Amino acid sequence: MSGFAALDMLLGPRFSTGASDLALHGQSESHFPSMPPDGVAYPRSAQELAQIMRICCEHAIPVTGWGAGTSLEGHALALKGGIVIDFAQMNRVLKVSSEDMLAIVQPGVTRAALNEELRASGLFFPVDPGANASLGGMAATRASGTTAVRYGTMRSNVLALEVVLADGRIIRTGSEAPKSSTGYDLTALFVGSEGTLGLITELTLRLQGQPEAVSAALCAFETVRAAVDTVIATIQHGIPMARIEFVDAANVRAFNAYGGTSMPETAHLMVEFHGSPTGVREQAQAFGEIVAEFGGGAFHWADRPEDRTRLWALRHNGYYAARALYPNAHPLTTDICVPISRLAEAVEETAADIEASGIPGPILGHVGDGNFHALLLPDKSAPEQIAQAEALAGRMAERALRLGGTVSGEHGIGFGKLKYMQAEHGEGWNVMSAIKLALDPSGILNPGKLLRQQ
Amino acid sequence: MSGFAALDMLLGPRFSTGASDLALHGQSESHFPSMPPDGVAYPRSAQELAQIMRICCEHAIPVTGWGAGTSLEGHALALKGGIVIDFAQMNRVLKVSSEDMLAIVQPGVTRAALNEELRASGLFFPVDPGANASLGGMAATRASGTTAVRYGTMRSNVLALEVVLADGRIIRTGSEAPKSSTGYDLTALFVGSEGTLGLITELTLRLQGQPEAVSAALCAFETVRAAVDTVIATIQHGIPMARIEFVDAANVRAFNAYGGTSMPETAHLMVEFHGSPTGVREQAQAFGEIVAEFGGGAFHWADRPEDRTRLWALRHNGYYAARALYPNAHPLTTDICVPISRLAEAVEETAADIEASGIPGPILGHVGDGNFHALLLPDKSAPEQIAQAEALAGRMAERALRLGGTVSGEHGIGFGKLKYMQAEHGEGWNVMSAIKLALDPSGILNPGKLLRQQ
Repeated sequence: MSGFAALDMLLGPRFSTGASDLALHGQSESHFPSMPPDGVAYPRSAQELAQIMRICCEHAIPVTGWGAGTSLEGHALALKGGIVIDFAQMNRVLKVSSEDMLAIVQPGVTRAALNEELRASGLFFPVDPGANASLGGMAATRASGTTAVRYGTMRSNVLALEVVLADGRIIRTGSEAPKSSTGYDLTALFVGSEGTLGLITELTLRLQGQPEAVSAALCAFETVRAAVDTVIATIQHGIPMARIEFVDAANVRAFNAYGGTSMPETAHLMVEFHGSPTGVREQAQAFGEIVAEFGGGAFHWADRPEDRTRLWALRHNGYYAARALYPNAHPLTTDICVPISRLAEAVEETAADIEASGIPGPILGHVGDGNFHALLLPDKSAPEQIAQAEALAGRMAERALRLGGTVSGEHGIGFGKLKYMQAEHGEGWNVMSAIKLALDPSGILNPGKLLRQQ
Repeated sequence: MSGFAALDMLLGPRFSTGASDLALHGQSESHFPSMPPDGVAYPRSAQELAQIMRICCEHAIPVTGWGAGTSLEGHALALKGGIVIDFAQMNRVLKVSSEDMLAIVQPGVTRAALNEELRASGLFFPVDPGANASLGGMAATRASGTTAVRYGTMRSNVLALEVVLADGRIIRTGSEAPKSSTGYDLTALFVGSEGTLGLITELTLRLQGQPEAVSAALCAFETVRAAVDTVIATIQHGIPMARIEFVDAANVRAFNAYGGTSMPETAHLMVEFHGSPTGVREQAQAFGEIVAEFGGGAFHWADRPEDRTRLWALRHNGYYAARALYPNAHPLTTDICVPISRLAEAVEETAADIEASGIPGPILGHVGDGNFHALLLPDKSAPEQIAQAEALAGRMAERALRLGGTVSGEHGIGFGKLKYMQAEHGEGWNVMSAIKLALDPSGILNPGKLLRQQ
């Protein structure tokens, strides 16, 4: 029996080779061309996925995981064909423990769905990459986003995992205890492994108490430098910002056009404070003093929940707002992260490089982490502009490494950033390959991604 | 030329086979018998260690790392002979960046030495396991201690590493950027790997700002349950305790005898608050309300730095205080960690089990993390008591796993806890072995530790 016949027998209608299903799973949110897989499987349990993996292992069928399809470096595209595992039917919240402040979820649960379920509990899951990604995908990508400056990335918010390995073995990593010192940190190894070492079938996630008080504000600056220097001073003062986001003038123009706002078209910081009412007041006051020191404008407060929602929707829609301004663009997202001390330099050099190119490239980012993005928008009908944008992105990556940083703060490698791995990791990249070979000797898990290609 | 001749030629007087040096490196802080290595090497750089590793690889000489010799599960003992790498001559602080709030250190620097060096900078390194361990050893053991409840364990405080592999390759993991999403988290893999995958030659550590205000206090409780329930409620209220330690009546008796205090001989919590003056007041008040709810006594404040030093010295000397009360004991340290919701149950069952055995066994722990220790003190001349103590420790490990926890919160596996690894990790333990085989195929790095023994 062929591998596909065996999958068909195992899964019935939950194994699909229909053209529309294949086409849907060939798309990504980025500029990559469509790459439909040969089949799509919808498992309902780890045990079922283990059976799928045994079949794929026997028949050498490549297997690529799929959460919500929101990754930006082609992580979920079946580059070498084979099947996509869509976790849409593994989307249950299995447990919420207020006492232990944790939730156990299946990988297909999205972060918004989890937070909706948590609303009445007084708890929330803090990691917020913007897109309504699946939690399995967020773990596999080591995602972060606007709140990582306070609450950490997926690295620090995943306590334990259940993982199905390439050969169908099921393992559990970590536990519900807050910490452990018993052997290799397999949880951390699978977080960020982009589906190349195993597929995550269950996640135990740390939750946070909903803060008693929340306050958010917008603040304009005359120069990029003043805004970024404000961020650096804020971090160094130890003010526990829940969010501190930078957007440049080009972004603000896009916000105004897309979101109907009338912000002054200059660099801004968008901030949020969490804590007790007194704590939030203290933080806001301390931050205000720093802003004044760097010549920032008055705060525009968003104190009501609906105002805050509107503020962060603006930020999260930055990508769409910029694209709407340039409908003929071939968008290229970048994602570098540098030490805070080099942030001003990194942003200024990048802005100057983009300006000199003449290509639109609004800059925004999670600057409390040293992480920022330029959304490069070359004209899709001008190949020389596209090549120029790729060169700009390459120079950003080189700049990040030269300044002691990393070529991806949160989007991951997929195959979009493979070309920078040798420069960033050197011999360490070979160590990753050795681990890959040890856990997936036939290389069926997400081939073509993250690792050195043979 | 033999391997030892080659090491001798490479290192001269920094390769020692002298009896006293061997004897010194055969000791540990635990109950294990002396196990002198065959040689001790004192490298001065990663490059030199790489040369040592190439010689040891060629001659199949086992290599065990040695920091300050304070590990508790025999991590640094040369169980299979060969050489010990003593990092005493790699003890420099290479860089302190106030802007990036990080330090780069060699592995032989102790945590006290680093904090001494940081004193004037307004920064500190928060991880505090009690012993003045080396930072390389703390990373290799994934250590934590009293402040992990607020600042995390070594897992979250190591940003980047330089590591020498079994075959002498030198790799760098991580960077000075606060986060990254570029491939497998090798930093997290080496943290906690107990010298079985590579030897750490440089660490980039996150630092914290010294808090504006610090306040510490002692508080007595009538029962173990009341003290532990207070901890659980405190964590759930989200009060950002810097330390919250439990000590039982037996410990307090030892403190009084050893430290000359006159505390009521009942269960206590020892707590510390960090923050702004207002923040600390708020935390203390909120904590006070919880204490009152559970019938705790009045706070005894230690506000002056010297009083706090005395308070935490009491706690850190708990081990020596208890040993001093029972000079003829063969001490056996335990270290389980459970979900906070199961903590009261875990402590009460353990206390009852110890009491029924008649063996002294004071309990204390980092209860904000769900982590506690019983120091079992059977008479060293009574083999049946020693066997009974080992059975008690075994039941603690089983209890930890039954309650969803882990057999070691912070001391690690070494060879003292190998017997519990299968029960805790199952198939995951085989995954660890596969990674070990991939990175150290000839098994020369710290043989006999952490992994399934062939």
